[in-house]
Amino acid sequence: MTGGPSIAIDAMGGDSGHAAIIAGAARARRKDPTLQFVFYGDEKTVRAELAQHKILASGVTLIHAPDSIAASEKPSQAIRRARTTSMGMAINAVKEHQADAALSGGNTGALMAMSKLALRTMPGIDRPALAALLPTLGTDCVMLDLGANTECDAQNLVQFAVMGAAYARTVLGNAKPRVKLLNIGTEELKGTDELKEAAALLRDADYLPLRFDGFTEGDQLSRGNVDVVVTDGFSGNIALKTAEGTARFVTDLLRRAFKSSLRSKAGFALSRPALNLLKVHLDPNNHNGAVFLGLNGLVVKSHGGANPKGVANAIAVAASMVRNDITRKIGEDLDNFRAHAFANGAAK
Amino acid sequence: MTGGPSIAIDAMGGDSGHAAIIAGAARARRKDPTLQFVFYGDEKTVRAELAQHKILASGVTLIHAPDSIAASEKPSQAIRRARTTSMGMAINAVKEHQADAALSGGNTGALMAMSKLALRTMPGIDRPALAALLPTLGTDCVMLDLGANTECDAQNLVQFAVMGAAYARTVLGNAKPRVKLLNIGTEELKGTDELKEAAALLRDADYLPLRFDGFTEGDQLSRGNVDVVVTDGFSGNIALKTAEGTARFVTDLLRRAFKSSLRSKAGFALSRPALNLLKVHLDPNNHNGAVFLGLNGLVVKSHGGANPKGVANAIAVAASMVRNDITRKIGEDLDNFRAHAFANGAAK
Repeated sequence: MTGGPSIAIDAMGGDSGHAAIIAGAARARRKDPTLQFVFYGDEKTVRAELAQHKILASGVTLIHAPDSIAASEKPSQAIRRARTTSMGMAINAVKEHQADAALSGGNTGALMAMSKLALRTMPGIDRPALAALLPTLGTDCVMLDLGANTECDAQNLVQFAVMGAAYARTVLGNAKPRVKLLNIGTEELKGTDELKEAAALLRDADYLPLRFDGFTEGDQLSRGNVDVVVTDGFSGNIALKTAEGTARFVTDLLRRAFKSSLRSKAGFALSRPALNLLKVHLDPNNHNGAVFLGLNGLVVKSHGGANPKGVANAIAVAASMVRNDITRKIGEDLDNFRAHAFANGAAK
Repeated sequence: MTGGPSIAIDAMGGDSGHAAIIAGAARARRKDPTLQFVFYGDEKTVRAELAQHKILASGVTLIHAPDSIAASEKPSQAIRRARTTSMGMAINAVKEHQADAALSGGNTGALMAMSKLALRTMPGIDRPALAALLPTLGTDCVMLDLGANTECDAQNLVQFAVMGAAYARTVLGNAKPRVKLLNIGTEELKGTDELKEAAALLRDADYLPLRFDGFTEGDQLSRGNVDVVVTDGFSGNIALKTAEGTARFVTDLLRRAFKSSLRSKAGFALSRPALNLLKVHLDPNNHNGAVFLGLNGLVVKSHGGANPKGVANAIAVAASMVRNDITRKIGEDLDNFRAHAFANGAAK
């Protein structure tokens, strides 16, 4: 491969359809002309859409995928159709080293199951986790798992902490990221047994390139006082979506408030440039692109309803992960972790 | 007892201290002069503070409690000190029918454990749940459990649904409230086994005075499209605190945006009256007061850091529950539920 990172794109996955995905790729290419794309999807449909974007006239491969995965499809069913679906074929391109990363906006459970089966987890990792950067009052923070694993044990959470710290070190450039476990209180006695056990393991693991800082609560997530928030996929998904919903709720109330009188309408007109900055900061499309960490290969999940800007952002996340060689870096951290844990008799 | 509802108040519980609690009681009395209070706490401290509020010169009893429960105290330790602590004595007043409801801003775990031990759960209820009203774009919605039970099985969730619906019917006046289970997707295959089983049980329970409407996600909580959201206490607490934190995050960003230029400062000045309405809508003190449902007696949890307005609001919640005879109404619904479930062979 020549040029920049090569991204295998599931052109058929997601609620917003192939047009948004291809328009997103065009947008990403405008920002980063070295990007290479391999689209998987219905050849006729994708070709017609590609023709709408001159910037995608070169550096693009189109591979026909006869089928696609439905949003409601069970992961156990989906994995049987890996070879014939746009999602399965995009993942396979990473496995076969035909692309540096795969990207899909489709069914998260199916994407997780297919990725795990095709790419396998890294040594020392039982389950991959879905990680993303969240906006805060300070610098962004890494949060994982965002929904890949409904239930997690203490070992899973410790592995997520190691992977999340490697992500933060690579992307945020923080040599020793602050890591906290999401809980319903900060006292040691709070929460599930899994959380208490994970906290005890992380407290002892002072050889890791991370600073474990105990528990944090939902109301602290956007304060900017932590670099990595670790949680099981159920709570992580609830927290992420509640945060998105609440941000939309407050901005809806704000819109209502501004419309409530002539005076406040005038105030809105005056404040508009400043309020637009707020809008940019909160737009989920600007934070789109969650990465499956812990696999022998890169897979990025784009939000199913992402607009072209959101898709472009997820592609940029994938490209940044490739350029930062995140898979190798996580592998090194895990080797280090297991070597120490083994020396201390705590290995599994 | 003469007059309005009599509330037994733990004057020593909560981070904001006895002064905020007593000032909150004074505030509640100004709005509702029929309220009777019984304060439990250090006699000298509470008496000095009561003297600051003329409106509390009558209709108030002060009972000395030699001790109080610390925020960090384990529930298992706390219950041994029920007889000598302000929290334990306030709960006991409800048990002994000396008060209609107890209120505390102290340690939630201890309050739950003590209340359960003193008041016992209603027939058919394994665990009480902490319920509160949340603001939405439409009418408020009831959410439970907010943190009383870290782990819940399907039966617990079904019981929460029945209790939450009774709460919604009583407080929101909705004869057949829409009930949803909080999950990480709306498809039937999503989530934990407990959630899937609870959904199946509720789907079959069409004799209940509620309309079960499947799963909902975190981003829908403030949309106003559901009357009762049921969840385990871990996820519920994460969602509630994340929503609080995100609302604060957005308003912090808004403040920053308004301060960013002279022009936007002027815009803020013009919009101020409208923005103040937004502030009122989002102030957690205006939504303070969570109720333990499923006990043979009323216990209300006030936020530990509530200001006097917040305490007054929690007292108003307690008074409203007393006047609405919520305990009896939940009992009737549960009897009805068990009679049907038994007839259908589904009783435990």
